[in-house]
Amino acid sequence: MVDTAVRPTDHENVDEIIRPTVDTDPITVPGQPGAPRIDVEKLGRQLLGTWADVRLASRELTARPEMQRIDGQSMEEHRERVMGQLKLLVEHGGVHRAFPSAVGGMDDHGGNIAGFEELVTADPSLQIKSGVQWGLFSAAILHLGTEYHHLTFLPDTMTLKVPGAFAMTETGHGSDVASIGTTATYDEKKQQFVINTPFRGAWKDYLGNAAKHGTAAVVFAQLITKGVNHGVHAFYVPIRNSKGGFLKGIGGEDDGLKGGLNGIDNGRLHFANVRVPRTNLLNRYGDVAEDGTYTSTIASPGRRFFTMLGTLVQGRVSLDGAATQASAMALKIAVTYATQRRQFNAASDTDEEVLLDYQRHQRRLIPRIATTYAQTFAHDEFLVKFDSVFSGKADTDDDRQDLETLAAALKPLSTWAALDTIQEAREACGGSGFLAENRFVGLRADLDVYVTFEGDNNVLLQLVAKRLLTDYSRKFASADAGALARYVVEQGVDRAYHGTGLRRLAQTVVDFGSTARSVSELRNPVTQRELLTDRVETMIAGIGGRLRDSRKLSKQAAADLFNSQQNELIEAARAHGELLQWEAFTRALEKTTDAGTKEVLTWLRDLFGLGLVEKHLAWYLINGRLSAKRAQAVTAYVDRLISRLRPHALDLVDAFGYKPEHLRASIASGAEQVRQDEARAYYADLRASGNAPIDEKALKAKKR
Amino acid sequence: MVDTAVRPTDHENVDEIIRPTVDTDPITVPGQPGAPRIDVEKLGRQLLGTWADVRLASRELTARPEMQRIDGQSMEEHRERVMGQLKLLVEHGGVHRAFPSAVGGMDDHGGNIAGFEELVTADPSLQIKSGVQWGLFSAAILHLGTEYHHLTFLPDTMTLKVPGAFAMTETGHGSDVASIGTTATYDEKKQQFVINTPFRGAWKDYLGNAAKHGTAAVVFAQLITKGVNHGVHAFYVPIRNSKGGFLKGIGGEDDGLKGGLNGIDNGRLHFANVRVPRTNLLNRYGDVAEDGTYTSTIASPGRRFFTMLGTLVQGRVSLDGAATQASAMALKIAVTYATQRRQFNAASDTDEEVLLDYQRHQRRLIPRIATTYAQTFAHDEFLVKFDSVFSGKADTDDDRQDLETLAAALKPLSTWAALDTIQEAREACGGSGFLAENRFVGLRADLDVYVTFEGDNNVLLQLVAKRLLTDYSRKFASADAGALARYVVEQGVDRAYHGTGLRRLAQTVVDFGSTARSVSELRNPVTQRELLTDRVETMIAGIGGRLRDSRKLSKQAAADLFNSQQNELIEAARAHGELLQWEAFTRALEKTTDAGTKEVLTWLRDLFGLGLVEKHLAWYLINGRLSAKRAQAVTAYVDRLISRLRPHALDLVDAFGYKPEHLRASIASGAEQVRQDEARAYYADLRASGNAPIDEKALKAKKR
Repeated sequence: MVDTAVRPTDHENVDEIIRPTVDTDPITVPGQPGAPRIDVEKLGRQLLGTWADVRLASRELTARPEMQRIDGQSMEEHRERVMGQLKLLVEHGGVHRAFPSAVGGMDDHGGNIAGFEELVTADPSLQIKSGVQWGLFSAAILHLGTEYHHLTFLPDTMTLKVPGAFAMTETGHGSDVASIGTTATYDEKKQQFVINTPFRGAWKDYLGNAAKHGTAAVVFAQLITKGVNHGVHAFYVPIRNSKGGFLKGIGGEDDGLKGGLNGIDNGRLHFANVRVPRTNLLNRYGDVAEDGTYTSTIASPGRRFFTMLGTLVQGRVSLDGAATQASAMALKIAVTYATQRRQFNAASDTDEEVLLDYQRHQRRLIPRIATTYAQTFAHDEFLVKFDSVFSGKADTDDDRQDLETLAAALKPLSTWAALDTIQEAREACGGSGFLAENRFVGLRADLDVYVTFEGDNNVLLQLVAKRLLTDYSRKFASADAGALARYVVEQGVDRAYHGTGLRRLAQTVVDFGSTARSVSELRNPVTQRELLTDRVETMIAGIGGRLRDSRKLSKQAAADLFNSQQNELIEAARAHGELLQWEAFTRALEKTTDAGTKEVLTWLRDLFGLGLVEKHLAWYLINGRLSAKRAQAVTAYVDRLISRLRPHALDLVDAFGYKPEHLRASIASGAEQVRQDEARAYYADLRASGNAPIDEKALKAKKR
Repeated sequence: MVDTAVRPTDHENVDEIIRPTVDTDPITVPGQPGAPRIDVEKLGRQLLGTWADVRLASRELTARPEMQRIDGQSMEEHRERVMGQLKLLVEHGGVHRAFPSAVGGMDDHGGNIAGFEELVTADPSLQIKSGVQWGLFSAAILHLGTEYHHLTFLPDTMTLKVPGAFAMTETGHGSDVASIGTTATYDEKKQQFVINTPFRGAWKDYLGNAAKHGTAAVVFAQLITKGVNHGVHAFYVPIRNSKGGFLKGIGGEDDGLKGGLNGIDNGRLHFANVRVPRTNLLNRYGDVAEDGTYTSTIASPGRRFFTMLGTLVQGRVSLDGAATQASAMALKIAVTYATQRRQFNAASDTDEEVLLDYQRHQRRLIPRIATTYAQTFAHDEFLVKFDSVFSGKADTDDDRQDLETLAAALKPLSTWAALDTIQEAREACGGSGFLAENRFVGLRADLDVYVTFEGDNNVLLQLVAKRLLTDYSRKFASADAGALARYVVEQGVDRAYHGTGLRRLAQTVVDFGSTARSVSELRNPVTQRELLTDRVETMIAGIGGRLRDSRKLSKQAAADLFNSQQNELIEAARAHGELLQWEAFTRALEKTTDAGTKEVLTWLRDLFGLGLVEKHLAWYLINGRLSAKRAQAVTAYVDRLISRLRPHALDLVDAFGYKPEHLRASIASGAEQVRQDEARAYYADLRASGNAPIDEKALKAKKR
């Protein structure tokens, strides 16, 4: 796209002189002497992670046309198709892994989620509807119920004889589950719970299986017995008869068309004093005796509530994985196209440039490959953690808390990244990216709601931040009042200068002229870790400091003070999640055995880490962590890393291991390469024939 | 959302001490003494802009159910519905404003676009399909054809008797129109052009009206006569018979389902030596005589090409306006909901917080109101410029170039902002935002392609950057070799320090301790303009400097050098577009007469300007334009402005003037307020009755 008319006059360039020169090693292409090459097969195996075989088996299933989405179906057709696919899943037997062997499962929690996530490649509606049935509805019976419920209800929910809804969210209460309005009042005389919806805002809403297929539901309600509200508990409630009509006292509405996931029949439910037997209370964490006495193994109502909700963390686990898969597919499609499609001829009279040779195109796609790799590695660690907690291998309170923090940190990052990545990939393919046949728009539409369901991303990040604040506060709980101040100052002395002022000036002077050293430092994972860790700690310490007086304040004033820090809290939590991803990527590198692969992946990890530093560069500058000089080196090195990675981009997305049956994108089918070859051959033949028309421009130039 | 367990211990806070304290004026709420209040009606009139009456008339039309989209229709149904709506538009007579009075139009170019943009509130498919028919297909006949074509073809295209396609884009060539493969070779013997598609990549693609309704097309092809290729010209080509079958030699395909805009029948066309009369060449800028002699009023083939394409700029104009409308609607819906919906009770035992009282929620929505205002004002100026060029009031070459630069700068910013704003609004409404009934998902899906059609956003911004480089290069064309260096240095002395190094240190020292002054400076529009202008100029100067040697290089090396600057070029162009928007907002303030409105709008403009500075804060720090101290003041002041604007948020979105018939979003209908009132009344009654269950938590606290 060079316009030769636009070249400034010859002159000295002041800016050039002060620009840091970095990383002068030559950029190589695989095949050149000394050039690293990725072992795509080995890398692919590493990306598949701990449950590689389960994933591959699941991918065989999702490669089958009958499991896949048909674009353009009506909502009704799509709903019925997905319902039919759920039955195929039951026949295939893969959806019961997580259940106890006593009821025909395999007690395999990690493998279950790994296989489940892969369903996103067939149709996200299939993934989420099966998640509703087995990951939420049946899982609630499993985790919140006891043996009676397992033996009574699970066999039919596992076989899909009883499709069910997970009735937690209400129109008026999404993330704040503790405040739901639905009540379950115990009637001692009849030994029944009376489920009731007291007002419109307390209608259950957005529930999969509620609009049409569900014949039962696990309903969350405030458990009231003997005049005391013991907080939110879950109840097994039949909702429809065999003909599909609502049972007495139950009503509902169809949520209708949605932005995506239209293969799922989301709907609303409400209850007018609906009675269920006392034993329909899923009573693992709280029970009501015949006489109405409430008992619980967990004394604190708050802790009991979080424990109950904590058993349902697998939804967040699986969304993190599915979102990462969707990003990977989008990148595979867009990068494949970008290495075949040509546009504009800048460097040659005859050949146009391949899209991925444009700097901007590289900047758009390659850093997102790095993010998707980081997510992939972080997700596998997350899944291992989940498995060890749910299998009982390591399920202390601390383990469960760590798991939930991990879930609350990673799910927001990967689901937002999926929307961002799919969209950038779609735009990078221009008009063809907008056609349903190339997959992006369908994936993006379906994944959209991943950022707000199973915990709204902003609310989840706030939970992470509170955990970080608690950790931070514990660190200083026993210390004297000056401890924090000294802590912050000591940090400063050890690492870098805090805040503005004279200290930073000193650093600026020190930095000047030592560019070479600063680049090798940026390559050093110790430096990257320090930069990323320091930011989280400093932000949390700053917020902690500003909140220090909140105990002395009125409830309103304390809330206002906390609210004034909300935005930064969420940013700190995001930074924490990014650090966790970076660490997982770095640990994965240690396990990479092939030397060529390791070299390229190290660049990719550096790109991920320094990309994060670049994104938050203003923070590093304001807080004196990077001098202006070094900050410039960050951007220059990011550019260099992208250039280095360009020749490996296709290998990196091939390693995700998707087959054409998973991608189903015509622009990634090789058709574009055929078109390009045909066009180039046409022009070459024309030139060779001597019959090519002369360009008017060329003619005029000749005449001159 | 305060968790009282999470409060750090009491201590000194070092960070606090060095944090700048800014803008201590109290925050007021309309109705308080001294508080400004927006005159919503007057402001609404100002937002409607120069063609307010045309817009209001168009909004009356779009308020009619028969003009609106029905969610959930099949693609086929939707296509037929929109086709029917186009006929209603003809009956209504509003779509012919831009055409000459000789053929029944009104010669009103600005008004035509203003009215056309409003169609997006009914259905973006309606907007774009009517754009295809009258803004592209008919407009090409008007602007590229001469009297013969106007009299022969326009009457039937204006009445929709002949629906037509605008056949420019090919599968293999989108943004690079000059390289399309379709040929139109003149046959002297028969005095006909032979339209031919030489290979698959040269199929016309993504054309509205091509899959089904079009019976003719304006086809762009390389005009070849007497063995010379005179570049791209447009031809009127009938494509279907009255029964809907393709004419001989013409074939095509349906593009099928898309991510949105499925009310339009986009498709592909190809031509196997299809013959049209010589006079079907739209010959305003280039003609072929009977004997095959080519003539043109524009000698330079390059300039001729750009002049021809320039006549079609109105597509970009209208997308800028329509994208801004879509953003405004999304904000009106989300802000309305955010002032009614409550979630979590941080400050009170009984009342939950309204969403818009959360800092994060404010940060998500209020800056986007500022951006949408900036776009609205910039768009009206853009439309006035367009009208003056197209009406002939001011249509010198410079005027046309300015118009195209404006289009290439503004269309990318507003179309990207629309996707960002609609998505943030949808997420801010949680699950309800994902339901089709609340409009966001439909609008976003339809608007998606606005960022890549009518000029891909990245390609357009590159055009802007080239224009800026040309301007910059002209500035120094006659100067000696050292001029640029001196220019950069002088700039530095006048304004602030460039680059890193000792000079910046001096400024840092000067800044220290003068926070109060720096805040009042940030409020000053002169400072804001300087910061924004300086960034554009400095970036362009830097790039210009780095490209200075490109003339001396080989074609390949020059292309590589240019490519190494591509990302920064596009960022510079974006900065230029942002500056244009800021300037338009500032000029609009001068026209705001009501004092209260002006005060609030000034905050909003400051938020827009300083929001841009905050977004690019790292640049300002690295380049020594802002000290770390002042950079912190920017963020603190942005926070303060958002707090100030919070009480006016609803007025600001109400001023967009949409009626319920335009919004058609159940969550913005007032239903949420009814639900909230009902829930609060229920709990108040329950408390008053004395029958409210006691919370287990409260009970335990009592027992202690």
